[in-house]
Amino acid sequence: MKTIRSQNFIAAALIAAVAFTTTIARAADLLPSWNDGKAKQSIVAFVEKVTKPGSPDFVQPAERIATFDNDGCLWAEQPMYFQAFFVFDRIKALSPQHPEWKSQEPFASVLKGDMKAALAGGERALLEMVMATHAGMTTEEFEQIVKDWIASAKHPTTGKPYTEMVYQPMLELLAYLRANGFKTFIVSGGGIEFMRPWTEKVYGIPPEQVVGSSIMTKFELRDGKPALVRLPEVNFIDDKVGKPVGINQHIGRRPIAAFGNSDGDLQMLQWTTTGSGARFALLVHHTDDKREWAYDRTSHIGKLDKALDEARAKGWTVVDMKNDWKTIYPNGKTQP
Amino acid sequence: MKTIRSQNFIAAALIAAVAFTTTIARAADLLPSWNDGKAKQSIVAFVEKVTKPGSPDFVQPAERIATFDNDGCLWAEQPMYFQAFFVFDRIKALSPQHPEWKSQEPFASVLKGDMKAALAGGERALLEMVMATHAGMTTEEFEQIVKDWIASAKHPTTGKPYTEMVYQPMLELLAYLRANGFKTFIVSGGGIEFMRPWTEKVYGIPPEQVVGSSIMTKFELRDGKPALVRLPEVNFIDDKVGKPVGINQHIGRRPIAAFGNSDGDLQMLQWTTTGSGARFALLVHHTDDKREWAYDRTSHIGKLDKALDEARAKGWTVVDMKNDWKTIYPNGKTQP
Repeated sequence: MKTIRSQNFIAAALIAAVAFTTTIARAADLLPSWNDGKAKQSIVAFVEKVTKPGSPDFVQPAERIATFDNDGCLWAEQPMYFQAFFVFDRIKALSPQHPEWKSQEPFASVLKGDMKAALAGGERALLEMVMATHAGMTTEEFEQIVKDWIASAKHPTTGKPYTEMVYQPMLELLAYLRANGFKTFIVSGGGIEFMRPWTEKVYGIPPEQVVGSSIMTKFELRDGKPALVRLPEVNFIDDKVGKPVGINQHIGRRPIAAFGNSDGDLQMLQWTTTGSGARFALLVHHTDDKREWAYDRTSHIGKLDKALDEARAKGWTVVDMKNDWKTIYPNGKTQP
Repeated sequence: MKTIRSQNFIAAALIAAVAFTTTIARAADLLPSWNDGKAKQSIVAFVEKVTKPGSPDFVQPAERIATFDNDGCLWAEQPMYFQAFFVFDRIKALSPQHPEWKSQEPFASVLKGDMKAALAGGERALLEMVMATHAGMTTEEFEQIVKDWIASAKHPTTGKPYTEMVYQPMLELLAYLRANGFKTFIVSGGGIEFMRPWTEKVYGIPPEQVVGSSIMTKFELRDGKPALVRLPEVNFIDDKVGKPVGINQHIGRRPIAAFGNSDGDLQMLQWTTTGSGARFALLVHHTDDKREWAYDRTSHIGKLDKALDEARAKGWTVVDMKNDWKTIYPNGKTQP
């Protein structure tokens, strides 16, 4: 008898706890940095309809997959992708072991501090610099290199650590979705092993929920100890048509919500929104040249052109950073 | 005042619920199909030490990654990998569209029912059959083909559906680990898209926690609708040295526990056990020729030779199926 009463108590307690959690998750004040406009309303309306039991749009928690681009969507990306700063810093750090770089492009320009010239060689030059700095060590050694860099490097114009240039409204959005039973993933053109060492701490997204571009790795025994060695060979480019491929490869389920900011995200948004049932797509439009940067159709970084047209044609949510966001960065100044 | 009291009630309830869950998770009767021998004791001892707060071996829940081979570890694999039966059934189903197969090996042998001759061409022949049956359709079409097959196909000697030839003690082990905060993954040489349609229902492992071999896919618009088309080209072989590579690619964290049954799992077990802190490795040894199959060092399927030697040298847990397991399959007969 005592046991039954105690079990009933526990059952009641669990129900109370669940109800309590649900109430929190539905509260709109989980998005305090969002102004109360169309963008915020569309997010809340979508989340409420897919989580409301009995709703025709209800989605089981296991199917609540949300994918986020990283550069320009979760953190800033100007005047260059932050991973490019990492590449340049690594070239400088490794230059004593590579005296030949002094006269060899694109390395020579990096060492002279002329980043524009270094990037003049286009994709081929960039790839060469990535391979010279991202391969040749074990995965554990590379993880430590990234951790050390991200803990100390500062952005050239804001002077902030890069992980403080994440978007506060997007941090709130990630937490709001998770509180509503969503599983949040990053699907980025950036390097998968460049992101994983810090995404859990910064975004609450664990390594196994990060999808990105990668180079090949090889298992070998080094002095009898297993190691994964990073090879100077491209494995996968997680951008444009690569994003749905990467999503299928890593997640194996079509997301019901996807978040991006550039033409590189177009196929991810197409793939997400053409599944059956309720779907949601959002683009962050960089419209704020005071608090961040304003750019879209002609930008070299984060070009937003075709995806913006398609968003307007299909009714996807477009965030106007200037007007929709009270705050850009964590602890930043808020608009009145 | 009322609010505070109500919050205290909820806090107390949550604590009670957590304590209750913890008690369940630690109870050894979550493994009722395991005889109380060294194998079971080693599992429970490991789980208790990594989950006990304050223990020198304590591991944060986020780091509690456990990886499982599938064929021969979570379900049976004799007299052939079950995916090979799928391939043969697909060849038969597709043969009306391929009249040329009647005179073309290895297809001709399959259509005559001579599986041994069909497999005589070795890896090349098998790959040819896999490509002919696994490529050319969209990912969604393939998912449906697998679902239809797994729901209706029967094993040639037991007459059971393949998903009833999973190992009851391993189902309990998966649930026991999850109840203790572990995240369970499959890391199999089998096809990733062959497993994902049923692993969630059968093992409680969602698609995003399945790592396997794969072919390439390509994003395209078909009548304006996005599709991922499966190409007859190998993308990744998740076996032997490929397993640590696949783990790193998909999970991005080194497991603290790994479970296998053959030499194909050796590198996964090496990779897992050589990380820092408490580690656990287990091999299922097929020793039961009455209730299942007995095979190891000379078997064509699931060869267990080098890994068995290394397990003994390094003190990894080796499950003796005959003596350690009360039951093999769910709802099967138990030993007295």
